Amino acid sequence: MAKSSSGQAIGTVAMRWHGDRLELLDQRLLPAEEHWLVADGAATVAQCITDMVVRGAPAIGISAAYGVALAAHHAGTADWRGEVDRAIRMLAESRPTAVNLFWALDKMQQVVSHCGTQDEAISRLGQAAVRLHEEDLAANLAMADYGLEVIGTEKPVSVLTHCNTGALATGGYGTALGVVRRLHEQQLLKRVYADETRPWLQGSRLTAWELVRDQIPVTLNADGAAAAIMAAGKVAWVLVGADRITANGDVANKIGTYNLAVLARHHRIGFMVVAPSSTVDMSLESGQDIPIEQREGTEVREIRGVPLAPVDVDVFNPVFDVTPAALIDAIVTEKGVVRNPEITGMKALFT
Amino acid sequence: MAKSSSGQAIGTVAMRWHGDRLELLDQRLLPAEEHWLVADGAATVAQCITDMVVRGAPAIGISAAYGVALAAHHAGTADWRGEVDRAIRMLAESRPTAVNLFWALDKMQQVVSHCGTQDEAISRLGQAAVRLHEEDLAANLAMADYGLEVIGTEKPVSVLTHCNTGALATGGYGTALGVVRRLHEQQLLKRVYADETRPWLQGSRLTAWELVRDQIPVTLNADGAAAAIMAAGKVAWVLVGADRITANGDVANKIGTYNLAVLARHHRIGFMVVAPSSTVDMSLESGQDIPIEQREGTEVREIRGVPLAPVDVDVFNPVFDVTPAALIDAIVTEKGVVRNPEITGMKALFT
Repeated sequence: MAKSSSGQAIGTVAMRWHGDRLELLDQRLLPAEEHWLVADGAATVAQCITDMVVRGAPAIGISAAYGVALAAHHAGTADWRGEVDRAIRMLAESRPTAVNLFWALDKMQQVVSHCGTQDEAISRLGQAAVRLHEEDLAANLAMADYGLEVIGTEKPVSVLTHCNTGALATGGYGTALGVVRRLHEQQLLKRVYADETRPWLQGSRLTAWELVRDQIPVTLNADGAAAAIMAAGKVAWVLVGADRITANGDVANKIGTYNLAVLARHHRIGFMVVAPSSTVDMSLESGQDIPIEQREGTEVREIRGVPLAPVDVDVFNPVFDVTPAALIDAIVTEKGVVRNPEITGMKALFT
Repeated sequence: MAKSSSGQAIGTVAMRWHGDRLELLDQRLLPAEEHWLVADGAATVAQCITDMVVRGAPAIGISAAYGVALAAHHAGTADWRGEVDRAIRMLAESRPTAVNLFWALDKMQQVVSHCGTQDEAISRLGQAAVRLHEEDLAANLAMADYGLEVIGTEKPVSVLTHCNTGALATGGYGTALGVVRRLHEQQLLKRVYADETRPWLQGSRLTAWELVRDQIPVTLNADGAAAAIMAAGKVAWVLVGADRITANGDVANKIGTYNLAVLARHHRIGFMVVAPSSTVDMSLESGQDIPIEQREGTEVREIRGVPLAPVDVDVFNPVFDVTPAALIDAIVTEKGVVRNPEITGMKALFT
């Protein structure tokens, strides 16, 4: 189990690196089953990302980096550089919205471009992927401190979160859930309300599972109950992660996040986005430019093969929505905090 | 199949009355299975209401009325009046929030208090229950006209709905879904977006099923996608039902309704509540006074026995939330419409 800089256990991990293979905890089967899949090549890693064996923007980026390292490791000697390049292109097509994926692949591309031999590439790409993983964990720990500072409470508070932004979604510890962990460590957390997060149920399957394991007080709720929770004065902050943040501070995140931002503003509750700077995409002006992945209707029509709706009913199933910067109180990254985000504050921190 | 006053088919029905028994379509099993349960006494009807074999505020009221008629029919001769009284009390405890239940039982209590013999009670309670059922259907048809008038569109629009307010939730045709049907009949409906409505999935299991059967264009979405649908300009109105409306115009309805009301206001989209006057409870000042039913956490932790979350995780599972009148553009009943509801407008129509 990984350790934080303060020596505390980080909790659950989503992946284990063995130099010649990557083990991924199959997040589709949680909480019923803890099954580890072994990926011994970039193609398997790409498929695991597409199929959501591994998910969460930072974890996707880290897995992809390991995938590039695997491509070098298992490439034929004749065209190892071509094989690595093709692996990078294939991994880039695994999912469209989280920018951490492209950021990680760019990093790996730069590393490989400076390698003269396959042996050098194997060694340096492996090191680069491990470093990227370690840096993500360190970023989460730094963000937890910043997030705590923004909340600035002296007595325990309850918060609400959406999707899974914990150890399973990152290099360890978590982004929004990292702030939750830090609140808990400091005895400043009363309770975290976890949206179940339909359709993929990251909240009930992953967040509740992580938090119950780590003995952090959690209450699960249907997504539709969030407004009632806020109206009852139960929560002080909404904490979420991000899949892409644009230059003006707009945030693409799990479908349902934008709902929460509107509700939080209506109830005068704080709304905080916690994400590493690798999630920031200064090349896009606003959230309108972010490609939003649409997934199969079966994710809404069925759960684990159990039909929940007529088989032929039309489904609208976007994986992400865009929260406009105007509804966000703070974007917390490892580089610092942008309050009331807009272009100037974003540029000051990220260029 | 029931017919509307205009001779059109009403669509699906939730119950069939046979004088000595009531058949209820088991709504827990839809859409996978169309199974009819036979209730031959008030106790079975009460259990069916508690277990949500039948649900939807108007349908609960009608079923309970039939339950009282069954109590008279199957009572022993010695204490038939005592048995009917006990049946009314038992039925009153079947669910707490929908006021139509208590309204219907009051009606039946009045009828039985004027009956001298068991034979008279059997006959008059049966007739009263059938009349209550027919009046609910007629109310739905009237509300559909009023709702159409409020929308006041000349070209087809799309709308969003929550839970199931259709034939399955009423005496036939539906409340909010009745307005949808009327829009469709008048070729003024582009598409209805149906929230799947966790945790019980009335939207995917019942609304989508009803609308697909009746060939009304429907798109199913996760509840969390509602804000994205609104932001994209896809819908002009949100149409919902109600379980209880208080004297000031506050509305208790399926959990998630209040979310939609906040979102609709934020996006400047109309928000209409459609419910028969039997849903109005002028004895309660505001929504704060409405008892809100909490149901088992297993409804969120599992779907049809499939575990979706850690078995021991705490769950917040209120069945209803309260939408304050200030967020409602129109309350549509068979007696007429209250726009921008508050106490004066409510009193004008309902006292």
